[in-house]
Amino acid sequence: MSDPDNVQPIPCGQMGSPVLIERQIYSQLLNMILNLQQLLGDHFKQLASVRLRCTSLEEQKNLKAIHEQEEIISSSMCQMASLLLSKAVSGLRPQESLVSLGSRGDIADGQRAPSTRQLDQLVPQERDFEATFLTRVLSNRGVDISLLYDSSFRDYEAYQKDKYHEENNTLGFLNLSLSENKLCLDLITDRLCQSDMNNVEEVLLQYPNWRGQPFLREEVARFLTYYCKAPAPLDPENVVVLNGCCSVFSALAMVLCDPGEALLIPAPFYGGFTFISRLYAKVELIPVYLESEITYKRTQPFQLTVDKLEQALYEARCKGKDVKGLVLINPHNPLGDVYSQNSLMRYLRFAKRYDLHVIVDEIYMLSVFDKTIKFCSVLSIEGLPDPKRTHMIWGTSKDFGISGFRFGALYTYNKEVASAMSSFGYLHSISGITQYKLCRLLQDREWIDRVYLPANHSRLQEAHDYITKKLKSLDIDFLDRGSGLYVWINLKKFIYPCTFEEELTLHRNFLDAKLMLSRGKSYMCKEPGWFRITFAENPARLKQAMDRFCQVLEKQKYDCLAKQLEEAQME
Amino acid sequence: MSDPDNVQPIPCGQMGSPVLIERQIYSQLLNMILNLQQLLGDHFKQLASVRLRCTSLEEQKNLKAIHEQEEIISSSMCQMASLLLSKAVSGLRPQESLVSLGSRGDIADGQRAPSTRQLDQLVPQERDFEATFLTRVLSNRGVDISLLYDSSFRDYEAYQKDKYHEENNTLGFLNLSLSENKLCLDLITDRLCQSDMNNVEEVLLQYPNWRGQPFLREEVARFLTYYCKAPAPLDPENVVVLNGCCSVFSALAMVLCDPGEALLIPAPFYGGFTFISRLYAKVELIPVYLESEITYKRTQPFQLTVDKLEQALYEARCKGKDVKGLVLINPHNPLGDVYSQNSLMRYLRFAKRYDLHVIVDEIYMLSVFDKTIKFCSVLSIEGLPDPKRTHMIWGTSKDFGISGFRFGALYTYNKEVASAMSSFGYLHSISGITQYKLCRLLQDREWIDRVYLPANHSRLQEAHDYITKKLKSLDIDFLDRGSGLYVWINLKKFIYPCTFEEELTLHRNFLDAKLMLSRGKSYMCKEPGWFRITFAENPARLKQAMDRFCQVLEKQKYDCLAKQLEEAQME
Repeated sequence: MSDPDNVQPIPCGQMGSPVLIERQIYSQLLNMILNLQQLLGDHFKQLASVRLRCTSLEEQKNLKAIHEQEEIISSSMCQMASLLLSKAVSGLRPQESLVSLGSRGDIADGQRAPSTRQLDQLVPQERDFEATFLTRVLSNRGVDISLLYDSSFRDYEAYQKDKYHEENNTLGFLNLSLSENKLCLDLITDRLCQSDMNNVEEVLLQYPNWRGQPFLREEVARFLTYYCKAPAPLDPENVVVLNGCCSVFSALAMVLCDPGEALLIPAPFYGGFTFISRLYAKVELIPVYLESEITYKRTQPFQLTVDKLEQALYEARCKGKDVKGLVLINPHNPLGDVYSQNSLMRYLRFAKRYDLHVIVDEIYMLSVFDKTIKFCSVLSIEGLPDPKRTHMIWGTSKDFGISGFRFGALYTYNKEVASAMSSFGYLHSISGITQYKLCRLLQDREWIDRVYLPANHSRLQEAHDYITKKLKSLDIDFLDRGSGLYVWINLKKFIYPCTFEEELTLHRNFLDAKLMLSRGKSYMCKEPGWFRITFAENPARLKQAMDRFCQVLEKQKYDCLAKQLEEAQME
Repeated sequence: MSDPDNVQPIPCGQMGSPVLIERQIYSQLLNMILNLQQLLGDHFKQLASVRLRCTSLEEQKNLKAIHEQEEIISSSMCQMASLLLSKAVSGLRPQESLVSLGSRGDIADGQRAPSTRQLDQLVPQERDFEATFLTRVLSNRGVDISLLYDSSFRDYEAYQKDKYHEENNTLGFLNLSLSENKLCLDLITDRLCQSDMNNVEEVLLQYPNWRGQPFLREEVARFLTYYCKAPAPLDPENVVVLNGCCSVFSALAMVLCDPGEALLIPAPFYGGFTFISRLYAKVELIPVYLESEITYKRTQPFQLTVDKLEQALYEARCKGKDVKGLVLINPHNPLGDVYSQNSLMRYLRFAKRYDLHVIVDEIYMLSVFDKTIKFCSVLSIEGLPDPKRTHMIWGTSKDFGISGFRFGALYTYNKEVASAMSSFGYLHSISGITQYKLCRLLQDREWIDRVYLPANHSRLQEAHDYITKKLKSLDIDFLDRGSGLYVWINLKKFIYPCTFEEELTLHRNFLDAKLMLSRGKSYMCKEPGWFRITFAENPARLKQAMDRFCQVLEKQKYDCLAKQLEEAQME
């Protein structure tokens, strides 16, 4: 999945705080009251027109009484609105309100704090709002979506407009933030240029099967059966193909959860999920916080344990969250962890105990380059604890380095889920000619097994060796894993004091040096100072990027020392 | 909902004093709301007495609208009270109560029948549901979406599985329901097979610009400037490219309207809008009913007039609907009407008067095959009444017969709207290689103007001549227009009694004969008996389909007579 880096954490994501939850409820109530006010306003206007027509004395008397009622009602409404306003905005910091997605319509969404827009509406002079409403073009949610997008993709848009190029733009952005595999572009381009790829027959040009063209779903089923080592052939009817894994995740969240319901997800986690879960699904992602410290014997940094899952579920339920499922990323993004079959089974049994769905994102499954690591797909497991609630996502963006193809597939053991997912093909389908090319690509096992995967793995290993050697030489801690396109690194020692604010400052310093990295905060990491750095970039660019990296850190180190010295002198 | 056995009880210890305080505030709010309910109840009673005295028709109409408002207000009050009650009592578990209430959108959305789930909630025995919920896999909206999809696409799915084929499946479905142009497949296939179409350079394989690749947006701007006869070159920054016009419409509805708000749309109208407006946007489409009868001089059947727009807007507002815009389809689907510049200006000025957005769907703009008709794009108009609220949609599905490409473009004069629309590219983008092909296609004016369009128009005209001759020979009324891929026909005389039930029966009889047509009801036509029949099918298949059509009608005619005879004998 792609990387909208810098996705701001949902304010309520740091939930925990009952105050925030209460505030959200107040703002929801406030929305309801505002709606009610609107309704009543219209109602009274309508009455006024009737009133004009009533002329008899008795009628006039009646109407006077009605008018008095109106006034009492209106004043009562204002009182309520005012009370709710004071409760909803108490202690709300401006940037929180900016990021929040809530709109008047989103009553059912428990995640939201009131948006700027909503707060605007609350300023007392009602007439002013009408003026505001008249000149406004976007809907409330339109404004919110715009703000969310801007906060999530600002850096990405800057990068799109100013990409590094060896000849034309040597001062452009080098992007080690985006998780894209650029090491095998030569191979994939060669393959895609072969003549068998081009087919424009009628069926590809016309309206498709919304679940994905049958020929592609059949191929995906065969492909996953083979590469996931499924115990029995997978069923094409359980495959749903949409335009990207993010679309699959979004649609899955829609059909498994109602607005305001929640999914557990070990944190840090891929930041794009935050954006997706908010755009349409309005599903809350509850982080199961993992820590860098090794707390138990035979565990490793950021290890996911069933205890942590149990604890997170318990706390979520105490807060009244309706948790519907668990999201696992395997191989993990950004940690690079690959779950053993035993671990995976423990997580699955945990989910089964609480009737939770499990969504396993295996988008990096063929990017395990360390030969000593055995990847275990959830589709390989015989006797799954709860097959009807087990759903797996895969796509070609990472493993084949073709994120521009916008291809994502769901495999679910639940026909009802597969069927409900079809509805989304109408708005998330892939062009027929692209579906054809994907089918040809997945079909070509000979090329995948003999040419592509061996080359891809050895190039990933080489780039990984390069970057980890570099990190070691800089004395930077990192998780040494053998999968994915990135390394999870610890830059705490370059941040002083070690806060998320200073993490952001460092991030901005990288940007100033035209280098993009992903910071831990956008992955909901609990501890400040962590970054994800992509190494699947061509060697020359990677070297160039690492030079910029070193320069920034050099200066950063100096600044930290200076700050500490200043503090020492103050004391 | 989750398994009650597994729900952790709320630990009493955690019910600290803040929770208690919150609960008190909820109780206070609840009291206020209960008072308000009382006041409103009295108010409504009072009104009822006034109502008895109003006798004129217009007064009655006004009062009916007021009564409807009362109902909305009451229901809104009940929701608030119920939410507050749950909060005051429990203090916790906000999500549950929120979800069960539905959003403002659901209340105000007149199109939406209560979901299975909402109805469930109203039945008293809560325990029963919990049992039901336990076995439930899909979310409530998942169930709703599934049902909506099934009702919208059941026939289409049947067709996908059993398509007619000259050699392999002569008993398969012939589809004159789908609006697809199959008359120029030879030309488009030839063009797409040319070598300039195949490009797999790096930028096409990687993450795109979410608003659409700049090279494609530039080409779309040039293309529209030329074919829409824009008075000045259109700006690529005002173009947004997504995977299909339906995605564009859905995203536009999201950023212009909040859930439950409404758009006016002359009916009959393209049925897909109904599905789209409900899947994500939750926007209500309010039909501006057009009638087959000619009611004024110098008008034609199903003519849209400003009076009708005014009337529909007035009635909608009386019902408390928040109307944000007007949707126009030009050339019209299913009527085939092409609006004159004068008409178009009248509609635009109407919208301007009420600060309504205008979304003009011009997806058939190059499918005006009658040379005597002058198509006037909204982008050709100098001095638009309200450019900031004028948005135009176009795509290649119809005019180039490549619906499988999933390409739709928005042109808006409003940068804020264009910017907000970018957010949707993340979940609705087109593969890079397809964007490239589209760009090449739109670029090739020589081919479009000299080869494609002349051939397309003459083939459409020919097929139109064939079908209208056939219809005349069957003495079937139809709208004789010179645009689009279909004819709007009147089959009233084959339906007895002329009801929507019998329209459906006829539709099913066509299906039994393996012939698909679109019935008026699915286009929100007010009068039963109308069908849309696509003629842009290859001649042999079209003839075959029309044979089936005649056979069904022959039998239908006989059945109608038999029914009438039976009735006569009964009397």
